[in-house]
Amino acid sequence: MTTTTVPHLITALRGPPLDLERQILKAMPAIEHWLRGQWQELATPFYASVDLRNSGFKLAPVDTNLYPGGFNNLNPEFDALCVQATMSAIEKICPDARGVLLIPENHTRNTFYLQNVVALQKILSHAGMIVRIGSLLPDLTAPTDIDLPSGGKLRLEPLERTGNRLGVDGFDPCVVLLNNDLSAGLPEILRNLEQAVLPPLHAGWFMRRKSNHFAVYKNVATEFAQLIGVDPWLINPFFEKCGKINFRERKGEECLEGYVSEILTDIRAKYQEYGIKQDPFVIVKADAGTYGMGIMTVKDPSEIRGLNRKQRNKMAVVKEGLEVQEVLMQEGVYSFETVNDAVAEPVVYMIDHFVVGGFYRVHASRGQDQSLNAPGMQFVPLAFEKPCYSPNPDDPGSPPNRFYAYGVIARLALVAAAVELEQTEQALDANSVAQLRVAPH
Amino acid sequence: MTTTTVPHLITALRGPPLDLERQILKAMPAIEHWLRGQWQELATPFYASVDLRNSGFKLAPVDTNLYPGGFNNLNPEFDALCVQATMSAIEKICPDARGVLLIPENHTRNTFYLQNVVALQKILSHAGMIVRIGSLLPDLTAPTDIDLPSGGKLRLEPLERTGNRLGVDGFDPCVVLLNNDLSAGLPEILRNLEQAVLPPLHAGWFMRRKSNHFAVYKNVATEFAQLIGVDPWLINPFFEKCGKINFRERKGEECLEGYVSEILTDIRAKYQEYGIKQDPFVIVKADAGTYGMGIMTVKDPSEIRGLNRKQRNKMAVVKEGLEVQEVLMQEGVYSFETVNDAVAEPVVYMIDHFVVGGFYRVHASRGQDQSLNAPGMQFVPLAFEKPCYSPNPDDPGSPPNRFYAYGVIARLALVAAAVELEQTEQALDANSVAQLRVAPH
Repeated sequence: MTTTTVPHLITALRGPPLDLERQILKAMPAIEHWLRGQWQELATPFYASVDLRNSGFKLAPVDTNLYPGGFNNLNPEFDALCVQATMSAIEKICPDARGVLLIPENHTRNTFYLQNVVALQKILSHAGMIVRIGSLLPDLTAPTDIDLPSGGKLRLEPLERTGNRLGVDGFDPCVVLLNNDLSAGLPEILRNLEQAVLPPLHAGWFMRRKSNHFAVYKNVATEFAQLIGVDPWLINPFFEKCGKINFRERKGEECLEGYVSEILTDIRAKYQEYGIKQDPFVIVKADAGTYGMGIMTVKDPSEIRGLNRKQRNKMAVVKEGLEVQEVLMQEGVYSFETVNDAVAEPVVYMIDHFVVGGFYRVHASRGQDQSLNAPGMQFVPLAFEKPCYSPNPDDPGSPPNRFYAYGVIARLALVAAAVELEQTEQALDANSVAQLRVAPH
Repeated sequence: MTTTTVPHLITALRGPPLDLERQILKAMPAIEHWLRGQWQELATPFYASVDLRNSGFKLAPVDTNLYPGGFNNLNPEFDALCVQATMSAIEKICPDARGVLLIPENHTRNTFYLQNVVALQKILSHAGMIVRIGSLLPDLTAPTDIDLPSGGKLRLEPLERTGNRLGVDGFDPCVVLLNNDLSAGLPEILRNLEQAVLPPLHAGWFMRRKSNHFAVYKNVATEFAQLIGVDPWLINPFFEKCGKINFRERKGEECLEGYVSEILTDIRAKYQEYGIKQDPFVIVKADAGTYGMGIMTVKDPSEIRGLNRKQRNKMAVVKEGLEVQEVLMQEGVYSFETVNDAVAEPVVYMIDHFVVGGFYRVHASRGQDQSLNAPGMQFVPLAFEKPCYSPNPDDPGSPPNRFYAYGVIARLALVAAAVELEQTEQALDANSVAQLRVAPH
């Protein structure tokens, strides 16, 4: 079984292939055919990264990021794959484009993030585009060079809006590529643009909800599970959402407690069915936003009511200081992968609908039942598995690609994101669509 | 100047970038934009390889193969690139396909070629296809396993035709992929197929002519040269063709002599213009076919008339014992590249319109003014250049991609091949089109 479609990367998996892994590998031609069918119907997001958790018995996405920020963590060997996939994306979305305006997050001191911007700029320029970086920072009034630890330099330029076109000094790009997840809302300067904006503005966290994503993912996972003949639960975590939460004022706790209790019961039934001995747990996190803020592991519903002031404050705000009002409760998936004895979870990167690489997010002081997206996390780039020709007559190629299953589940999440964005677009009333001026994608 | 779009491979070039190379690197965004425009209009051949010659002052394609046979000579590190490009091609040409029938050349003892078939099979199956190999060998009546020196095994199966569908036992594929260049003519069993046939049948050497290819290439090169502001001659070799040649009977020698003389005069004028001291030379070769048979270097028109019987016999036949009647005379391009002190020429591989790798064809006993496509040639896979981050503020990435120019010229030849195939299709009268039943591509 040598089949691949996704790069052959070295995973942290040990031992013989797991059941689910084997079933995915076996169904590969059917899976790829099914995925091709999806991409015929759907507009693929320009790029995405998906956080996965692999508990051995279960492999599931727990977060899908449409503004991926870790391209600097990919192995440089993947450059050519990233460039080729970017060329594909550009051909489909904006074949006539020559110039791209890249709009990053406003983190001028986070050099890890800035290295990601450099990596993205490099990929885009290697794909034949002229790339300049326009900053949303309100106090950036002139081009500003930032020195990076790698020795490189990043030039941020103030955005300039002329009518309904956005650019920087002397540069009128065909495409605006956001690497800013719009957590703080939709800036006025991005509204009603004539240019294509990627991803579409309604993918921003001011509007996007994880619960919408996982509701779509549930359908995708169900259809896929039927295709390969497995229980959908093996790739799909239970979840529920509560609105109108106020952690500081202890509003909505009964909603959280009730659903956490339901989810724990559901997981317990599944664990019993599969003979799994671990304790079920639920991850409680903000329904919008990122950066691993406001995330907690709950094993008993009473923990919700028992939160102390410090814990409640921590859950109450996410990035950009936004108050959390909507909360997602998601079945926790144990991570049984380790890198250097630290718990690890794979993050898969995609450009267009191609898997272009990945890394392990590793956290030495976190457990198998905790989010690893927290200060202290480290990134271990995945390397290409070196092909080793074996004399197996049925398999003249390399050893099985254990990373393949990761690439499949990540692409299921990407399918879900594509459907989700279509639905979000349709859900907007005519007025807001006009205001957002969502570009064709 | 770090721009790329094609994989960053190590070339055999020494010293500072050459003028032409520098101009191509500089114009990269314009070039990629122009190429994207071409692919919007044209149906890209499924795959191709292009032989290039680099004389330092001139970089030109000398042969474009639409049934490339050296995938085994690519660096295994390129597997993921090949797979990604194959997925792109399948999505465009036959998204609904699950099964591919691969039809190779009838070389059962050429293990180099058979390794290429294995490599192709691997790429296709890694792209998610079910692949089986159907043989045109008339005496292959049952599935036959061939052991390969690598330890692998290749299974050839007899073709089975049911109505207008082609397959092998129990396998009804959606697509027929030819890796057989049809030098010997169009087998009856391939006519009027209902399935998509790639490349289209009229790409076979029973119909294709190098002179048609280079006539189109001349136009492509002229347009491209205008785009980047260089003399088209720097990327385009002069050529002429003669029909009705019979080397054994010495028929048509005056045609050859006349054109060789004209081409030499034209080259001489160009060499003078550019201050080049070398002797001009012309390559005389069959206008159809491949495998480096029937190729000679001519520096003086009188050499044509002076051919002895042995030389004439050698020129008279190509692959499959076919008599040469049409002859191409092409400006010879010195190869100034060497690998281990042997003359080398780059061969660039493409799938869909993506450059997926390449190798050097190396011949220790041939000169800079001779075809290297001859017994005794060896292949040196090109490796990825390892990125080395430099503190140059304008270039936070890798050193300039010297392989880029090769990728551009190879893609110009691919554009020419695409136009050539469109023209060949149109040139067929309605009757032959029906007979060939050329599949949509």
